[in-house]
Formats: sequence, C-alpha cells, structure tokens
Amino acid sequence: MAEKAQIGVTGLAVMGRNLARNLARHGHVVAVHNRTPHRTRELVEEYGHEGTFLPAQSAEEFVASLERPRRIVIMVQAGPATDAVIDELTPLLNPGDLIVDGGNAHFADTRRREEALRKRWLHFVGAGISGGEEGALHGPAIMPGGAPEAYESLGPLLEGIAAQVDGEPCCTHVGPDGAGHFVKMVHNGIEYADMQLIAEAYDLLRRADGLAPAEIGAVFRGWNDGRLGSYLIEITAEVLGHVDAATGEPFVDVVQDRAGQKGTGRWTVQSALDLGVPVTGIAEAVFARSLSGDAELRAAAAGLPGPLGTGRRASGSLVADVEQALYASKIVAYAQGFHQMQAASAEYGWKIDPGAMARIWRGGCIIRARFLDRIRAAYAGAPELPSLLVDDYFLEAVRGAQESWRRVVATAAELGIPVPGFASALAYYDGLRAPRLPAALIQAQRDFFGAHTYRRVDRDGSFHVAWGGDRRETLC
Amino acid sequence: MAEKAQIGVTGLAVMGRNLARNLARHGHVVAVHNRTPHRTRELVEEYGHEGTFLPAQSAEEFVASLERPRRIVIMVQAGPATDAVIDELTPLLNPGDLIVDGGNAHFADTRRREEALRKRWLHFVGAGISGGEEGALHGPAIMPGGAPEAYESLGPLLEGIAAQVDGEPCCTHVGPDGAGHFVKMVHNGIEYADMQLIAEAYDLLRRADGLAPAEIGAVFRGWNDGRLGSYLIEITAEVLGHVDAATGEPFVDVVQDRAGQKGTGRWTVQSALDLGVPVTGIAEAVFARSLSGDAELRAAAAGLPGPLGTGRRASGSLVADVEQALYASKIVAYAQGFHQMQAASAEYGWKIDPGAMARIWRGGCIIRARFLDRIRAAYAGAPELPSLLVDDYFLEAVRGAQESWRRVVATAAELGIPVPGFASALAYYDGLRAPRLPAALIQAQRDFFGAHTYRRVDRDGSFHVAWGGDRRETLC
Repeated sequence: MAEKAQIGVTGLAVMGRNLARNLARHGHVVAVHNRTPHRTRELVEEYGHEGTFLPAQSAEEFVASLERPRRIVIMVQAGPATDAVIDELTPLLNPGDLIVDGGNAHFADTRRREEALRKRWLHFVGAGISGGEEGALHGPAIMPGGAPEAYESLGPLLEGIAAQVDGEPCCTHVGPDGAGHFVKMVHNGIEYADMQLIAEAYDLLRRADGLAPAEIGAVFRGWNDGRLGSYLIEITAEVLGHVDAATGEPFVDVVQDRAGQKGTGRWTVQSALDLGVPVTGIAEAVFARSLSGDAELRAAAAGLPGPLGTGRRASGSLVADVEQALYASKIVAYAQGFHQMQAASAEYGWKIDPGAMARIWRGGCIIRARFLDRIRAAYAGAPELPSLLVDDYFLEAVRGAQESWRRVVATAAELGIPVPGFASALAYYDGLRAPRLPAALIQAQRDFFGAHTYRRVDRDGSFHVAWGGDRRETLC
Repeated sequence: MAEKAQIGVTGLAVMGRNLARNLARHGHVVAVHNRTPHRTRELVEEYGHEGTFLPAQSAEEFVASLERPRRIVIMVQAGPATDAVIDELTPLLNPGDLIVDGGNAHFADTRRREEALRKRWLHFVGAGISGGEEGALHGPAIMPGGAPEAYESLGPLLEGIAAQVDGEPCCTHVGPDGAGHFVKMVHNGIEYADMQLIAEAYDLLRRADGLAPAEIGAVFRGWNDGRLGSYLIEITAEVLGHVDAATGEPFVDVVQDRAGQKGTGRWTVQSALDLGVPVTGIAEAVFARSLSGDAELRAAAAGLPGPLGTGRRASGSLVADVEQALYASKIVAYAQGFHQMQAASAEYGWKIDPGAMARIWRGGCIIRARFLDRIRAAYAGAPELPSLLVDDYFLEAVRGAQESWRRVVATAAELGIPVPGFASALAYYDGLRAPRLPAALIQAQRDFFGAHTYRRVDRDGSFHVAWGGDRRETLC
C-alpha cells in the first residue's frame, strides 16, 4: 500500500505553499494540490528536499492520497473560489473527514459552510492564520474554529507548526463554527488601529517636534525595548531608518501616502455595528486609510486653511508624551477589540476565552507584542472582565498616561495635525467613565421629534412628554 | 360605478394613519386598509370628517377600490412585514400599477424588490419619508426612488402633501431603485451626527463653562436665530428649558443618559465602509449611542482616573468658541454625508442631484436647517463639487472657526469631557488638507510584513523592498 499523507493542502499560492512546507518540515507527509498543476510541480521541485510531499494532479488523486479521517487545508481566495473548492471536494469525502479553510473568510460564510458540511457529516474548520508568508513558513498564529472533535484530530498538527512562545503554541481551539475567523478578523481590525496609532505618533514627532525620520526610528527602537515592545514597533523603526537607494531620501518620504486595505478592517467595524460595540479606534483607522487613498478629494482640499505643525524642533520634546499617548490609546484599541470578541461570543454562543486569544497572539502574528502577556494575565484573573481598562495594571497605566495623553491630543488639535486614533481613544475613555453623558439630551430630543420615549433616573418605566401640547409627562 | 380612490394606504399605525389623513386633507380620495380592521375603523370614525376615505376590510377590496393605474403606499415595518404585504398585493395588481414603500427599508432590499416587481410590470417606489408623526400629517420631506414614469404618476400627489419651503415642495425624484431609501438613510445618519454634536456642545457648556441647563437653553435659542438656525437647535432649546414637573429639576437631568437607536445610523456607516467613504462623524455618533447604552460597562468604568470638567463657571466663556466648533463640525458631518451620497450615486448609477437633496431637506424633516440653503447653493454652482468644504462659503466659515474649533477640542481633552464628534470632525478636516499623511508609513509597514507593495512619489509602478534580505527595491 502506498504511503498516505497525514494532511493535504490545496491552493499553493505563497501562503498555501509555505504552510505545506511548514507541515513537511515538521515531519508530516503532506499531500499537495493546486488547480493548475504547475504550482504543485514547482513546489515539489524546489522544496521536495524539505520533507515528504505527495503531489496530486486531480482532486480525486489528492483525496485518495490522504489517510482517514482526511485532513484537508484549503488555501484559496476567500469567497466563490472557496465555495468552488469545497463543492469539488465534498463528494469525494467520507463522514468524519475534515476541511480546514485557512483563508481570510468572513465569519458569516464560515458559519454557513460549517452548517452545510455538518449536515453531510463532514467537519469544517474555519481557521484564521496570521503572520503572512513568513509566518506560514516559520510559525504562524492559528485561530481554528469548528467542532471540538475536529480540533482533537487537527490540534496536534496545527499546534506543532504554529509559532511557540515560552513553550506554548500560538494556536488553540477558539470556539464553534465561525469563531476562529471572527477572532482573526478582530485581530486584523486591532492591527489597523495599532498601525494608525503608530502612524500618528510618527506624524506628531515629525510635524510637532521637528524630528527627522531616522531620529524617529531611533525613538521607536528605544520604545521597542519597553512596554510598547512589539513587532509593529520594531518594523516601524526599521522602515523609518531605511534610506531610499535611488534618491538618498528617507524611504518613508518616497512612498506615496495612500494606504491600501483588503477588507477585514471594514468587516470588523461592520460587525461591531451589528453587535452594538463601539470600536471607534478601528473605525477611525479604516476611515483614515480610505481618506488617504482619495487622491481627488485630497487634491481639491489642499490648501484649506489651518496650521500645519510647527515645522521646527519644539522647545520641550513631545517624545515622552507621545509614548504615553500611544500606550494609552493602544490599550483602548485592544479593550475595544476584546469587547467585540466577548460580545460576539455571547451573541453566537462561542464561549471564547479572551485570555487564550491574547496568549496565541503573542507570536507569529502581526500584532504580537509584549503587552499581550498583560492582557492574558488580566483575563486569567477575571475571565468576565467587562473591559481591559478596569484591570488593575491597565488602569494604572492609563492613570499614569493621563496628562501626556491629553496634552498630545490638545497639541495636535492646535497644530493642525490629524490624530483621529489618539483623539477617538481619549473620547472613548472619557465617555466610558463619565458619570453623566449628554445622551440624556439625545434621548429627550428623540422623544420630542419621534415620541421614542425615555426612561427616568428615579422611576421605572418608559415616559413621553406631550411636547407639542401641554408638556405633561405620561407613563407609556 | 362606485367612487374610486386616487391612492391607497395600507398599514395604519400612526405614520400610515397620518399620511392617509394628509392625503385626504389635500382633497384626495384615499383607500385605507390595515391587517387588523379595527385600525381602519378607528381612522374613519375619528378622522372621517377630514376628507374622503374608502375603508377596505380585505386586500382584495382595497385593491378594487383604487383607480388605475393603482397607487398603493405601504406603511408597515421594514423587513419581512413589507415583503408579506407586497406578496399579498402583487397577484391582485395589473401591469403599470405602483407600490410605494414609505417605511425605513434598507436600500438593498428596495433594490431587490424593485427588480422583482419590475419583472412583473409593476412599479416599486422606495420612498424615504422624514418628519415623524407630525411631518406625516402636516407635511414631511419625501425622498422617492424608482422609475421616472412612476414619479410622473406619483409626483404631483406626493409634492402636494410634502412640506413646502419658499413655495417649493420638499419632495423630488431622487433616482432609480434604492436611491430614495439610500438618501433617507444618509439623512438619518447625518441626523445622528448632528444630534451628537449638539449634545457635545451642551456638555461642554455645562461641564467646562458651568452653565445650567436653562442657561444653555437660552444660548441655543440665541443660536437658533443665527447661522445654526434649525429644527434640532430649536428643540434643544425647548428641551433644556423644560423643567420636570415631578421633581422641579431640569428635565434633562431626570432622563436616563442612554440613547436608543433604530438602525439607520448603523446602516449608513456600514454602507460608507463598503463605499470607502469616511463618515467618521456618523460613526462616532452611532458608537457614542452604543456606549451610552452599555450600562454594565459604564458601571464598571465609573471612577476610572481623569478630570471631570471644571464644575464651575469658567473665567472666559466658551459660548462663542463652542458655536464656532459646532458650526464647523456640522459642516464636516454634512460634507461626509453628501460625499457618501455622491459615491453611492456613482456606484449604483443613480445620478442623484446633491443640491436637490439639500433643497428637499429644508422642510418637513428632522435636519431641516437654514444652512441647507447654503448647501443647495454650493451644489447649484458646482454639481460635481468634490466636497462641501471646498465651497467658498463653507471654506470661509471653517476659516473663521479655526481657532475656536481647535481650542474647544483641546479644552475638552484637557478637562476630560468626551467630544468624539468635534474631535473626529477636526481630525478629518486636518487629514483632508494635510500635504502629506503618515499613510506612507502604513503602506511601508504593509510592504514589510505582507509584501503588499507601495507606490513611489517619483515613479510609476508598484514596488517592493526585500525587507528580510538585502533591502533592494524591485519593481513588481
């Protein structure tokens, strides 16, 4: 009998290829398949020495080369391409076989697919995989959803190829059906917010403090040794220190200032709106990217009145203030993202362990950071924590950041430097802790124009004032 | 032959009833129908003297009582209830008959329904109707979409019962299929932003300036005579001046500070995310309402460190500054909403006339305001205006508001008063006019961790740096 593969990968673009290589390097026999066979051939030719690959020309051959229950990882484009592969594979599978979707599917699609395959006695595992090409090859963070039995079969393989931090794999069973892809989506949303905050910090140091990119790179390198230590801070230092070979200019100055996006940030905000969870930091980050990309609008708006920073080195350096503002705003962004995961977990019955999410994000993925140990610790002590902001450690961090954070937002407003991330984080924080919000006025307005009623602070029930008449209050 | 009705209304809850009465008061014979007949009976008993109603017990009788081509207005809950009524009516109708959905349907549903009915030779008109109960009775703003032929038949009736401003009706043909409901949705989104800004202005005057609600009501009454003159400012003055009869306290202080919402604000932001249009003001307003309503989270966060305003009358009053900040932020909110309408118009081929939208919002609806004449004028002079902010009038208004606006955002940050609306409007404005955005850094980070490539300022093409290797740049 021919050797069988423990796992198969179909879709051998760079992410799929690297994941297959990662599996083979860990000693697994890996069946590999691609719609166009040249990619399969190339993989075996170039990397066949790294392990044992079983190349398949057809879906039938691919399925036949796998031990049972079969484990198949799909690494194709999210959307119709994923459905097409699933539709091709399912008739060839047996009850108990597993399909893993390792792409960036929308969690609602994953829920639909999981339900459809469950009815055919097949397992469907929507697995968020973070870390890009390098992560896929050397150890990504993996966020698999689906049935617990599926994870029993799959977990050891995935945990083995995932990034490892302090001896723990950056992979765990997230929860049923769409939970894995949901968590990956929020991860990406947080990544948008984090990158926006870093960009604002850079912009402030440059435009309010007069520092050059290389100097700011050095500041970030210093920050990377402290509580802000993280992959994103590290690569920011690298980028800012990089000099463009063609011009001799700072690299960041030759790059067009239009940020692209691929959709998961947008999905995160759309889901948060459905869940009623304020994720202002992610929303501002997504919108800031849209704004940056609207060349026509920006060209029309060039020259609108207002200050444009100082353009010179400030007398009192903002570096320490900006570090505080960045850390505090980052805490808010993560608090919002974790809130969204908790809300979704309750809504969809996923029982997501937020501390475990912080744990598996410590390695492999883009937002890996020292700071995640603190988040893990916060939830380990209190799994039902209503917000990271009320955890002792984070509360003290934000207490210490107060004056700097406020000074940074005020300075940016006065100098005309846009800080949608810092400012919205501060507004969220001040809104959350406000003893009274002017939402009371909004609710009264709504009663005035739409008879939407209001609640009183001193009595139960819904009330309405006859605004157009004698202004008596009635209990509705 | 029995008298026939020119138009019929089915769904006689308060909005439908008032719309039917409005039609009857204008001399139209109105067929009326409701799923449960008691409402039909009550309407005729209570308001039969206002005009000629033809009450119908059944859908068949209702349809038979209408002249042809039939014009039927559905005033039921958005969603499945609307589909149910459509499904009940369509088999009874003849080619060329018209169904108007006057509810708050999602524009995507309206597009779907219009397409389905068009195939059956029926017209479907999704009509946004704004102004609440009072507007429906005395003259709403009406935003009908659908085919131009449908508007030919329907326009005179709707224009006749709509609010009138300077002799012009607050009703016009918006565009094909979902255009009317889309515009109504954006109207509501802008309403969210406007109300949030007003609430922040009130909160600032109270917490930073030490003014009492009645005093702030007087300030708003004064503002209502100036460029901010609008229905929302007017009713804010009324609400703030109102004293709770039960306690003798300012009314706004006995209302729970949790703002409700019904979904159109959320839809607006979700659509804007799909369109890639930054509507930060609306997003912050929607999220601020969600935050206010999260009692558990707010209770947990009570006492988080930070300042809580001054609590006393300030030495230099903020009133004039806040008026400037409110006006400038309001311009930004409207600029974002109009940008979204223009983007959707291009995306869906609707050919919406933005100036006409400003015109029909001048009366009947919640955001009616003096200011809309300015918006109308801006687009009359330049229908393709990329942003309201670059129109001469608005540009000068924002120029004049600069220092006050920045001072208000800075003061709020320092005093711990949440101003997500003011701050995000300012950040948007400063982002729009920035000669360079730190989006360049974001794009460089994306190239670093995900090989997403970047564009250069000095050469065409997409480039990638081998960040993990020799850091050479390649043209992709």
